[in-house]
Amino acid sequence: MKSLSRHLLASAIVTALSFSHLVRAEDSIQQLASQLAEQAQASSLGYDIVESLTVEVGPRLPGSEADTRAVAWAEAKLKQLGFDRVYKETVMVPVWQRGDAQANITSPFPQKLVITALGGSVATPEQGIEAEIIRFASLDELKAADMAQVQAKIVFIDHKTERAKTGAGYGKSVPGRSQGAVAAAEKGALAVIIRSIGTDSDRMAHTGMMRYQDGVNKIPAAAISNPDADLIDAMLKRDSKVVLSLNLSPQSRGEATSYNVIAEVTGSSKADEIVLIGAHLDSWDEGTGAIDDGAGVAIVTAAGKLIQDLPRKPARTVRVVLYAAEELGLIGGKAYAKAHAAEMDKHYIAAESDFGAGGIYQLDWKVNDKVLPQLLELSAGMAKIGVAAGDNQASGGPDVSMLPELGVPVASLRQNGIDYFDFHHTPNDTLDKIDPKALAQNVAAYAQFAYLMANSDIELRPIPVTKK
Amino acid sequence: MKSLSRHLLASAIVTALSFSHLVRAEDSIQQLASQLAEQAQASSLGYDIVESLTVEVGPRLPGSEADTRAVAWAEAKLKQLGFDRVYKETVMVPVWQRGDAQANITSPFPQKLVITALGGSVATPEQGIEAEIIRFASLDELKAADMAQVQAKIVFIDHKTERAKTGAGYGKSVPGRSQGAVAAAEKGALAVIIRSIGTDSDRMAHTGMMRYQDGVNKIPAAAISNPDADLIDAMLKRDSKVVLSLNLSPQSRGEATSYNVIAEVTGSSKADEIVLIGAHLDSWDEGTGAIDDGAGVAIVTAAGKLIQDLPRKPARTVRVVLYAAEELGLIGGKAYAKAHAAEMDKHYIAAESDFGAGGIYQLDWKVNDKVLPQLLELSAGMAKIGVAAGDNQASGGPDVSMLPELGVPVASLRQNGIDYFDFHHTPNDTLDKIDPKALAQNVAAYAQFAYLMANSDIELRPIPVTKK
Repeated sequence: MKSLSRHLLASAIVTALSFSHLVRAEDSIQQLASQLAEQAQASSLGYDIVESLTVEVGPRLPGSEADTRAVAWAEAKLKQLGFDRVYKETVMVPVWQRGDAQANITSPFPQKLVITALGGSVATPEQGIEAEIIRFASLDELKAADMAQVQAKIVFIDHKTERAKTGAGYGKSVPGRSQGAVAAAEKGALAVIIRSIGTDSDRMAHTGMMRYQDGVNKIPAAAISNPDADLIDAMLKRDSKVVLSLNLSPQSRGEATSYNVIAEVTGSSKADEIVLIGAHLDSWDEGTGAIDDGAGVAIVTAAGKLIQDLPRKPARTVRVVLYAAEELGLIGGKAYAKAHAAEMDKHYIAAESDFGAGGIYQLDWKVNDKVLPQLLELSAGMAKIGVAAGDNQASGGPDVSMLPELGVPVASLRQNGIDYFDFHHTPNDTLDKIDPKALAQNVAAYAQFAYLMANSDIELRPIPVTKK
Repeated sequence: MKSLSRHLLASAIVTALSFSHLVRAEDSIQQLASQLAEQAQASSLGYDIVESLTVEVGPRLPGSEADTRAVAWAEAKLKQLGFDRVYKETVMVPVWQRGDAQANITSPFPQKLVITALGGSVATPEQGIEAEIIRFASLDELKAADMAQVQAKIVFIDHKTERAKTGAGYGKSVPGRSQGAVAAAEKGALAVIIRSIGTDSDRMAHTGMMRYQDGVNKIPAAAISNPDADLIDAMLKRDSKVVLSLNLSPQSRGEATSYNVIAEVTGSSKADEIVLIGAHLDSWDEGTGAIDDGAGVAIVTAAGKLIQDLPRKPARTVRVVLYAAEELGLIGGKAYAKAHAAEMDKHYIAAESDFGAGGIYQLDWKVNDKVLPQLLELSAGMAKIGVAAGDNQASGGPDVSMLPELGVPVASLRQNGIDYFDFHHTPNDTLDKIDPKALAQNVAAYAQFAYLMANSDIELRPIPVTKK
């Protein structure tokens, strides 16, 4: 008994010590994570990175010469920052060139419009297209229209985008952009123009990707600015027959080689397990790709660098992935998932920053429902930098959105996007639209999140089945 | 004595009657003027007019086909509104066409810039100009520079425009635009680009007029957007040698006929005396000329129409003048002064609306100093619609600015221009930038002002001598 008591006592002491050690360790990780966040908020590193990218490279359409320069910039920058490992992985990307875009109302009130081709659009015939406009308030209204009404006309999808902190208005308008050309062509339209998917009233058109469908005639697709959409509406109120002349010269030119550029902070004890924080390196061509997605590149790179510089590395590897060709259809994201298929079960969690530089206000998850309370407790310290506990409905961001289907947990660090769609996909996507303080808060949140995840003992799998 | 007393009594009664009649008449005019203002504030007429002009005509560069349509629109609109008299007067205007503008940083950080030619600029040679940029913070700094520094370079005048309710920042920046090409050419520069004279951070260049000087080489002149100016600054911080390639193809094409379009409410008792309220009909070519100066056209036209519709016309004639080619150098204003030289002494007062549609907060005068107190009393009722009493330093507005030298009193109805230079001379000068309520307040102020002036018994002349 003595021996037993002694053993029990010893065991109790060990347990107590372990527990206190555990508590200390947890405290210590959370504390370190909070210190890291504080340090990030005081640092201008994120801003310096996005300034460097937008000034030294600027716009970087996938497959363009500038895209090649962006990849070189990223590799050099990540190496210069001293990451443990920097490498790149080939991604084949479609090459699409914008060309010129001209649109003129020729009757009854001759005026030039501000227009830009949608990404992937075919050109008009060289002599252009001149036809009457038929307006629909939404894609659904177009789909419900009689073919006779639409035949040989230029379809105008006039869907206004609602302003929202979450950016929810975008999702409601975007089908008109992506599917408008197919829906219009199916009813015999010659071309489609859409009211820009933007919450601004700047006379700038918002570009973005559109799609064709096999077996359906490919017609040119373009966006006009919000003031131009208002103008057409005002003309149509005066005269139902408004004639538009349209000249677009975009070109698709096969494929080119681009790269996902990757940097790693090697984990101290579980180096094969990965906490992935990503952003996309490519951008549309008319701004300098500052908010979309230079900000994301800066946020995850700066967060990674702050972790790299810690005196004690976290357990898991933190992998910073700068994806290729997100804008043309999550091409880098898909390539990554394919290239790393064998490693998917080693991905502890993934998150992408691709919503500008507005402050992060909430952290959502896609993890095993049962461990959500533990995660909320673990990340409770993020409230100090303004990040509230969220739900279990995260998508993770565009380039990691395919990972949950492969079993990988994801998180969404929700940003205030109240003005994001004022500038998104326009010439106005420039450095001055980024608030350095809000950007630093983003870096802080990503650094804190990644550090916590790279040290967490919580088993995040299996994740809830995603409904299709 | 009886007879004398009776006479005195009679005289006193007459005086009293006259005085009370006078007081009643003054009250009545001020009261009617206030009622008119109230009516104007409740009316959408001003907005309807500027919508009609911007939708049905749109941009109307002097001497262009659209300018001809604008003149036709104005004549038809004024006739349709039922003015007593509508006529037009020939104004010969220079014809300048914008052409295309391309600017690319070719080294060390290749990027495309957003640029537009300044009004009146010559073209670059067909192959363009490629040269190193030399930056100056202001026109004065350029003027002070060594010729050797500037020789064979492209001068960049990087003067930021301050935001102010009064628009005072514009006046400080504008010499760089108007005189930059001459100052740069005198030191051997190949071209000049300026930071846009605008308070916005939109990636849109602000155009505007520039001048050449006999005997000085004519070099191309253009404006880049504020974000592009920031971009060049950031490049120059990294590398002092930044090379720009510039292609501009504007053309000057002689002269064309345009018109000052004029409408009148014939005065009831002093029909030959004129209260002139004006605005300019022409506009730059990239927006729809909504704030500059569709708003002014709408304000003075609606104000005139409200006076036209009064059951009792004011004593003097109210003349609404829609000037030609203000943007190219007050050409309509100068033509008017010349054509009406013989009538100058019959101009009781003149005022032009050419500062957008921001609310009017103050009424300034240029009149005989001695009668200022009387005028302030007469116009005191305008405080009810937010118009405070001002000073005696008015210019009257660009197209009437030459009238004080000819002895004509003027007034300036000061508008809140806090955001005017966000949109001024850019594609963003569109209808949505006009707040209908603020526009209606402008109409109210002009109607009230014109009505008071057309009935006033105050002798406004001689005006203080303008210092040159």
